[in-house]
Amino acid sequence: MPVLLQAPDPAQILPVPGVRLGIAMAGVRKAQRKDLTVLLLDEGASVAGVFTANRFCAAPVQLCREHLQQDLGIRALLINTGNANAGTGSSGLNDARQCCAALAQLLQLQPQQVLPFSTGVIMEPLPVDRIVAGLPAALAAVRADAWAEAAEGIMTTDTLPKAASRQIQIQGRTVTLTGISKGAGMIRPNMATMLGFVATDAVIAPDLLQPLLREVADASFNRITIDGDTSTNDSFVLIATHQAGHAPITALDSAEGRALREALTALAQQLAQAIVRDGEGATKFITVQVSGGRDEAECRQVAYAVAHSPLVKTAFFASDPNLGRILAAVGYAGIADLDQSRIELYLDDVHVVTGGGRHPSYREEDGQRVMRQAEITVHVNLNRGTAQALVWTCDFSEEYVRINADYRS
Amino acid sequence: MPVLLQAPDPAQILPVPGVRLGIAMAGVRKAQRKDLTVLLLDEGASVAGVFTANRFCAAPVQLCREHLQQDLGIRALLINTGNANAGTGSSGLNDARQCCAALAQLLQLQPQQVLPFSTGVIMEPLPVDRIVAGLPAALAAVRADAWAEAAEGIMTTDTLPKAASRQIQIQGRTVTLTGISKGAGMIRPNMATMLGFVATDAVIAPDLLQPLLREVADASFNRITIDGDTSTNDSFVLIATHQAGHAPITALDSAEGRALREALTALAQQLAQAIVRDGEGATKFITVQVSGGRDEAECRQVAYAVAHSPLVKTAFFASDPNLGRILAAVGYAGIADLDQSRIELYLDDVHVVTGGGRHPSYREEDGQRVMRQAEITVHVNLNRGTAQALVWTCDFSEEYVRINADYRS
Repeated sequence: MPVLLQAPDPAQILPVPGVRLGIAMAGVRKAQRKDLTVLLLDEGASVAGVFTANRFCAAPVQLCREHLQQDLGIRALLINTGNANAGTGSSGLNDARQCCAALAQLLQLQPQQVLPFSTGVIMEPLPVDRIVAGLPAALAAVRADAWAEAAEGIMTTDTLPKAASRQIQIQGRTVTLTGISKGAGMIRPNMATMLGFVATDAVIAPDLLQPLLREVADASFNRITIDGDTSTNDSFVLIATHQAGHAPITALDSAEGRALREALTALAQQLAQAIVRDGEGATKFITVQVSGGRDEAECRQVAYAVAHSPLVKTAFFASDPNLGRILAAVGYAGIADLDQSRIELYLDDVHVVTGGGRHPSYREEDGQRVMRQAEITVHVNLNRGTAQALVWTCDFSEEYVRINADYRS
Repeated sequence: MPVLLQAPDPAQILPVPGVRLGIAMAGVRKAQRKDLTVLLLDEGASVAGVFTANRFCAAPVQLCREHLQQDLGIRALLINTGNANAGTGSSGLNDARQCCAALAQLLQLQPQQVLPFSTGVIMEPLPVDRIVAGLPAALAAVRADAWAEAAEGIMTTDTLPKAASRQIQIQGRTVTLTGISKGAGMIRPNMATMLGFVATDAVIAPDLLQPLLREVADASFNRITIDGDTSTNDSFVLIATHQAGHAPITALDSAEGRALREALTALAQQLAQAIVRDGEGATKFITVQVSGGRDEAECRQVAYAVAHSPLVKTAFFASDPNLGRILAAVGYAGIADLDQSRIELYLDDVHVVTGGGRHPSYREEDGQRVMRQAEITVHVNLNRGTAQALVWTCDFSEEYVRINADYRS
C-alpha cells in the first residue's frame, strides 16, 4: 500500500511539445497488460541518459550507451515490461538490436536512432516476435497527451503509476517539464533508478544536457533505496525538444539555467520519492539524514547502512522505537575511527541519543509517537565535520517477502 | 524452524577439566528464564577473545578488552541475556563494572579477573540490581557438566541451544574441546559472532592463544551472515585450562598445534553454522562459494553481496530458481572492472550460467530441483584469478520480518 501517494490525475500531466507516446498490449509475459510503450521525439530533440552501475548491466542498457554515443539523433524510445533482457549474454544483445531495427524500419529511421529499455524478469530470453508484433498498435496509438497512460505502460510490481509535470517561465515563455518513473523493488540506484523519463521543451545547448542530468540524478534517483539491490536495468533519460521558443540556455549557472535545474530537480525528486512511497510492501516513507560528517561520502555510507539494515526497517514496520538498531547500523557502517561518544540521534524533533547513550529527557512514548507516523525523518549527527547527506527509503514488511517470493509465479 | 539442526544431547557435551558453569534465572527482562550464566575457570587458565568491529560496541565488549589487556588472570565469565548494555553511554560502562565487581567480591577476585557479556535489547539501561541479586544462585549451581544448560542460558531469539564437543589425542593424552554459541539475528560477524565460548584443557603456550583464536574465527564465525547487521556485542572467547597433562604446545605449526587447530576450527565451524541453521525465520542453509577472483577480498565482497541480497534470499525462501537475481548481486558487488561475459554460475551441480548468459543445457526444472533442498551451494566463478572465499547464510522469510517486528513486544 503506497505511502501518501496517489495515482496522477491525467489532466494534470501536461504534454511536452515535440513528444508523442503510444502504448500497446504485446503479451510480453502476460496477456492483457499494457507492456509496450513507444516515445516518439520530433527531429532536433536532444537526449541524455544515465544508467546502472551494475556490472551485469542488461542488453538494452548496453545498446542505449552505444546508440547515445553514435549520436545520430535519437528519435524514438522503446520500452517493454515483463522481461528485463538481462543476464542473457550475446543473444540478448541481438534481441535488443532486432527490436530497435524493427521500430526504426516502421519509422524510416536508423536503428541507432532508437533507445531500448526493458524491465521485468532477469535471465529469460526476450520474446522479440511478440514485441515486434505489438509495435504497429503502439504507433497507431501515439498522442501527445498520453504521459499518464505511459506511466501505466512501464509498471511492473508498482501498484500505482508515477507521473508529474511542472511549468516554469523562461523569458516570458512557458516551459513544460513532464516525467514518468517506475520501480518498487531491486531499488538502490547507482546512477539512476529502474526507469525514469523526463522531457522538456526548454531550449538548451545540447552539450549541457548530460551534466544537467547527472546533477539532477544525484539529487533525486541516486538518493533512494528500497532493498539495496542495484538493478541491472536502471536508466534515467532526459529529453529536450527545444520547442519552447525562448533563447537557448547556454550555461547551467545562468538565471535561466538555474530555474530549469531547480524545476528539473524538484520533478525528479518527486518521481524518485514516488518509487519509495510505492516500495514493495512499504508502509512508511523514511528520510535518513546524516550530518556532521567529514565528507559527503561518509555521510552517505552511514545513511545507506541505516537505510539498508533489515533490523531498522522491520522496527519501522512495527512502529517500534527500538532505536538501538539505528545506533548499531551507524556503528557498522565502516567508519573505522568513529567515536560513538559523539553521536546524536533524532527521530523527527525527538532527541533520542546524546553522547552515544540515551538522552536524559528521552521518553519511549515520544519515540513511539513518531514511529507511528507515515513519514519519519531519522537524523544522525556524527559531530566530526560539516558535511551531510540524505537518503530516502521505506520500511520492510512481511509483504515485501511475500511479493518477492511470489514474483514469478 | 532450524535447518537440519537439533538440540544437543547433554550427554554428548563433555566437561572440560578446569571449567565449571552455573545458570540462574535473574529476571533480567522476563521472569522464569535462564538468563544468567557464570563460567568459573581454575587458576592458571588462559583466555583470548575477539570482539565486534562495530564502532558502537557495547559496554561489556569495551570492558572485556580492558580486562584482557590488564592480564591479571581471567577467572570468571559473566553472561546475561535480555539486555545488550549497548548504546548506553558512560552509565552502561559503570553498570558493567558494577556487575564484574559484585561477582569478583563473591569469588574473592579482582573485578579485572571477570569478563562480562551481554546480549538482548539495545539502548535500555542494564538492570544491575537484578543481575547482582541472581549471582548467588548461579554460583550455588556450578557444575562441570552444565555446558548444555549454559547453551540454553545464553539464548535470545535462538530456537535451539547450540553446543558441541570434540576430543583429540595429543601425546597419548585425551584433550577435550567444548563450546557453545548463540545468535539468530543481527548476524554478520566482523571478528566473531554474537556470543561464542570454546574451552579446552589443551596445554598451550598462552601467547599462542590469541593468534590461534583469530585464525579459527576467520574460518568460522567470520564467514556467516544472516541479515548483514553486525551486532554491537559480538564476542568469541577461547579458554585453555592447560589440564590435559601433555607437554605444552609451543608452535601452532607443530603436529600437535595443527591437530588442535583443526579440531578447534571444526568445532567453531559447527557452532557458527548452527547459528545460521537457526537464523531467524530460516528455512534453508546456503553456502555461497566464489572462486576465480584476483584476491580473497573480492571473492568475499561478491559472496556477501549475494548472501545479503533480500531478493536472492526471498527467492531461496520461495524455492524459485529466479537466478538472475544472483547475477544482479554479483554485478553490483562493487568490482568496477568485472567482465560479465566471463561469469559462470552453478547451483550445486547444475551449471546455470556460462559466458554471462543462460547455459544452453540449463533447464528450469534442474534449478527447481536444487532450490527445493534444505541445503544449497551457490558457486560463482569470476574467471579472473585463482582466489576463492565462502560464506554461509540462510534464506529470508516472512517469519524473519515477523520475529523482528515483534522482538520487543
